[in-house]
Amino acid sequence: MSSDWRVSDRVGKIGKSAIHEMTRLSKQVEDVAFLSWAKPTSDTPEHIKQGAIEAIEKGLTAGYSPTGGLPALQQEIAKKLKEFNSIEASPSEIIITVGAIEGLSAAIMATIDPGDEVILPTPTYSTHIRQVVIAGGKPILIPLIEEDGFRWDIEATRKAVTPRTKAILYCSPSNPTGTVFDERTQRALAKIALENNLMVITDEAYEFFVFDENKHFSIGSIPEMKKNTISCFTFTKTYAMTGYRVGYLHAEESLVPQIMKAHIPFAICAPVVSQYAALAALRGGQDCVDDFREHYLTTRNLMCERLDRMSSVFEYIKPGGSYLMFPKIVIEGGKTDSSTFCKKLLMEGRVSTTPGVAFGPTGESHLRLSFCVSEDEIHKAFDRMEAYLL
Amino acid sequence: MSSDWRVSDRVGKIGKSAIHEMTRLSKQVEDVAFLSWAKPTSDTPEHIKQGAIEAIEKGLTAGYSPTGGLPALQQEIAKKLKEFNSIEASPSEIIITVGAIEGLSAAIMATIDPGDEVILPTPTYSTHIRQVVIAGGKPILIPLIEEDGFRWDIEATRKAVTPRTKAILYCSPSNPTGTVFDERTQRALAKIALENNLMVITDEAYEFFVFDENKHFSIGSIPEMKKNTISCFTFTKTYAMTGYRVGYLHAEESLVPQIMKAHIPFAICAPVVSQYAALAALRGGQDCVDDFREHYLTTRNLMCERLDRMSSVFEYIKPGGSYLMFPKIVIEGGKTDSSTFCKKLLMEGRVSTTPGVAFGPTGESHLRLSFCVSEDEIHKAFDRMEAYLL
Repeated sequence: MSSDWRVSDRVGKIGKSAIHEMTRLSKQVEDVAFLSWAKPTSDTPEHIKQGAIEAIEKGLTAGYSPTGGLPALQQEIAKKLKEFNSIEASPSEIIITVGAIEGLSAAIMATIDPGDEVILPTPTYSTHIRQVVIAGGKPILIPLIEEDGFRWDIEATRKAVTPRTKAILYCSPSNPTGTVFDERTQRALAKIALENNLMVITDEAYEFFVFDENKHFSIGSIPEMKKNTISCFTFTKTYAMTGYRVGYLHAEESLVPQIMKAHIPFAICAPVVSQYAALAALRGGQDCVDDFREHYLTTRNLMCERLDRMSSVFEYIKPGGSYLMFPKIVIEGGKTDSSTFCKKLLMEGRVSTTPGVAFGPTGESHLRLSFCVSEDEIHKAFDRMEAYLL
Repeated sequence: MSSDWRVSDRVGKIGKSAIHEMTRLSKQVEDVAFLSWAKPTSDTPEHIKQGAIEAIEKGLTAGYSPTGGLPALQQEIAKKLKEFNSIEASPSEIIITVGAIEGLSAAIMATIDPGDEVILPTPTYSTHIRQVVIAGGKPILIPLIEEDGFRWDIEATRKAVTPRTKAILYCSPSNPTGTVFDERTQRALAKIALENNLMVITDEAYEFFVFDENKHFSIGSIPEMKKNTISCFTFTKTYAMTGYRVGYLHAEESLVPQIMKAHIPFAICAPVVSQYAALAALRGGQDCVDDFREHYLTTRNLMCERLDRMSSVFEYIKPGGSYLMFPKIVIEGGKTDSSTFCKKLLMEGRVSTTPGVAFGPTGESHLRLSFCVSEDEIHKAFDRMEAYLL
């Protein structure tokens, strides 16, 4: 008996995660320069750690919270959504989730059935594509226009809508390109959604990390979109606490019990110690977020400078947000197998990056680089890349 | 536009969770006697809390762990599986999950496709049924034989297998009945699974809480079942840490990457602070588990004594394990609407219980009672039930 036989079609359709595969391979290389994972390398700020510790000491973290999350945390989030995202939310419209990722899975499960189509940009965060496939849905990938700064192709999106289309799913700022989809773009998407009764599901994990003239815009702030948006957020990127696995989603009141029907079988509730850490994060000063943003701005600029010195190998669009960028490999006429390129760069150049092919069909011949690292790490990685590639 | 229109069929098919609905309603009642939720009311043992605190202080909990979990924890789990469950597991065959529940969801997603059938006993843990429905599967519910101590009906199980059957899913000790399915029963299930190429997915959350002459048996310990079993476990019940959301699953090596394709989109990894707490739990002394077991034995016996005094209202099977029991309401000729009964008992008698109908079609006319509470709580609840019902 082969065990392959037993695997469901839905997972059979999915390849191995290139992101996690590179992490695994990176462990085989000594003293690797690590630009491949989207997790902050700083420790969580002290007051957030203390919030978790105090909750443990007081005996508040032993039992489940309500499935939607701690009421005090829901209240703080409602305030944050109003102040930062211009989303009018009542606490009961918020579900605390296991990072943004579990909220996205629950939102997708509550929205689509097998055979339904979901529109996503390409390149996009590979896990979004996988979440749609796990739900039995069909990802419809709309190429971003790279020549125009990874601009969203609104006309192509409109044409891609069919009677089976149920949702549009994207992250802004974008993983992997760092593109901030502006208010005008998202209002155009809202129009398509409203005209066709589509749900818009957002992943706003990098909302606090936008640079230059860019501004984060939440499509859920458009009043007409209230019943057509499930907005997913996380504490983990904002406050350097990816290991805590705590995020949240906002949806209109009547949708919440429906999403809960998927949230409970996935998690029952978000980890309670992490919910207390999140509470400390929202109640504490936000200087740490400004500090992280400034650091990422510095490291973004440094990475761009170093890329400028390698223009015979890479072309890039300067990312307006996130802590990720997505340079194109221009050797071999732009037809480089990114997987082979990354593996060789890791094994022979000792630099860990993520192959662009992981992020959708138009991701091929690109690399994803993370700048949520120290300046030293960037120098180390680029010194090696120059030595290996130039 | 109605928002109901947009909800997927899969969640549309699922009713509200009666367990969580009762929790919500219970908050409206002052000084309620609470027998309705399967979470220990004790705090997490001190050395486990300290394990979490030290990891936070040392800066070990900020970033993701590997998606499968902390290697040190996988190693400790492999030892535990060998010593306690007689399962020969390598650390790479273990995925650390968000409680048992996320592991179960990932296992189901990796095993079944829409339209596939999954055999479950009834009554059973309602979330199992929901997990199958979320995956688009068809739950095939085999009534346990209550007259014979909720015995598993092997003959009916064999007859229920069709070409669409992909899996058998159950918990032992059982939620809600507390039944411990013995080795002989599970070997009979294994035979059916092997003859029909079925996956057996287990939920062994209550493995440490078995009483009297009962013994916990893991079907995954049968060597021939290695490729046909996904065994799901949790730390949260064993060590009174339900809020930490950390458990694990074991599956044969070749299945692990397949299950990982669902685990990553659901969670990326289990909460890291909770993984360190789990590490402290496994490395520390196990006296706390013995203490919990002894306490539950005492409270089980007390609950049975109190039920004996209400034999005109309830008949029951003494549970051999877990901290749950499932008495039958014998007034009205055994045809009581359990939902109405529980709501009235809550609102008028100020005792919170869970209606049996939540646990499958043969759960109707029953109550689920939790004895993971203090003796005082049991006395308080039964004093009130006697006053209200006798």
